[in-house]
Amino acid sequence: MTTSETPILPEPSLRRLPWYLAYVDILQTQGMEYVSSTQISRALNVDASQIAKDLSLLDIKGKTRIGYEVNLLKEALGDFLGFHSTHNAYVIGCGSLGQALIRDSGLSEYGLRIVAGFDIAPEKTGSGISGVTIHHIDDIYDIMDSNPASIGIITVPPECAQECADIAIAAGVKAIWNFTPYRVKVAQDIVMANTSIYAHLALIYNRLNAISK
Amino acid sequence: MTTSETPILPEPSLRRLPWYLAYVDILQTQGMEYVSSTQISRALNVDASQIAKDLSLLDIKGKTRIGYEVNLLKEALGDFLGFHSTHNAYVIGCGSLGQALIRDSGLSEYGLRIVAGFDIAPEKTGSGISGVTIHHIDDIYDIMDSNPASIGIITVPPECAQECADIAIAAGVKAIWNFTPYRVKVAQDIVMANTSIYAHLALIYNRLNAISK
Repeated sequence: MTTSETPILPEPSLRRLPWYLAYVDILQTQGMEYVSSTQISRALNVDASQIAKDLSLLDIKGKTRIGYEVNLLKEALGDFLGFHSTHNAYVIGCGSLGQALIRDSGLSEYGLRIVAGFDIAPEKTGSGISGVTIHHIDDIYDIMDSNPASIGIITVPPECAQECADIAIAAGVKAIWNFTPYRVKVAQDIVMANTSIYAHLALIYNRLNAISK
Repeated sequence: MTTSETPILPEPSLRRLPWYLAYVDILQTQGMEYVSSTQISRALNVDASQIAKDLSLLDIKGKTRIGYEVNLLKEALGDFLGFHSTHNAYVIGCGSLGQALIRDSGLSEYGLRIVAGFDIAPEKTGSGISGVTIHHIDDIYDIMDSNPASIGIITVPPECAQECADIAIAAGVKAIWNFTPYRVKVAQDIVMANTSIYAHLALIYNRLNAISK
């Protein structure tokens, strides 16, 4: 398996590789057979030497003057990024965003399988969304035995974010994907990713404001 | 209004300010009256001088040895970040992620009001989700007259991302919030924000893989 040899990649490479995958996916749909780093460079506005360097991380070689075989490159990128493996996750906090993520079937195409939701509201626990059962957070230890997950998606109100992350980690989760604006702290051996929806909104509002003047 | 004086802020400040807001919000719930930058620093693991610098962008002054008044700081941060104003947005692409965003009522608490959805699938157009009508993308010019929006949220398949962004901009949208893994290109006077869900997934998978060895 390619994944067992995966090194720890720098964040900028991990940000760019999905761009290449999306682009190569489009080329495949268009029936293109080969693509060069120069061509990717032009389409995505990324330096060609940077692309060659990023792609050198993969177990794939381009041919001189022809470039990479589109089908192979797509397969190699998806494998390398872990999108072809299944990663089980819990959604902690089944309010509107948590429910939205459970309903977003698109995530499963990128290897994320939400296997359970957790909440504390009695009107939510026991019910199901898109086939995913919502449990009381106190049951997370039991569910970890019967239906384990390595990723905890935190979609609770900010004031509960740290506590919920702590509980998920205590139950055995190895990675926290934090969607709250609270800056959750975790031990060094726990993987942490923040998706800062509100920071992006703030950025959009600030820039819109500046151009409207 | 504070917003009319807002300067173009550096992205790192815009990323940190929502953290401070989330933290101050928690303090308010706990009934705290004052907070110092040292206290914020300890809670969020951000350098105290950096916090003081970020907060100096706001029209609020802390008191020596006491710090900032929690209620005022919360209000000032929310104002400054644009979360107390209403910003109209269209969701372009009403698949699972687009529908999820329309259903996520939490966004409205941060000033984002989704006023219309757009798609091309006949089984989607004409229907409504959470009170938001889904129109055919061809109608975006008309809708811009009757129900205008400045932000276009792109949640289409990657191969349509550029075309949909171009259409939204042609119709009058001033900012693109791109949720696709495709790297959309826009003119300089258009605001662009990328929320790289898939890059974050790739990061989590890569790091999980590294620690499991």
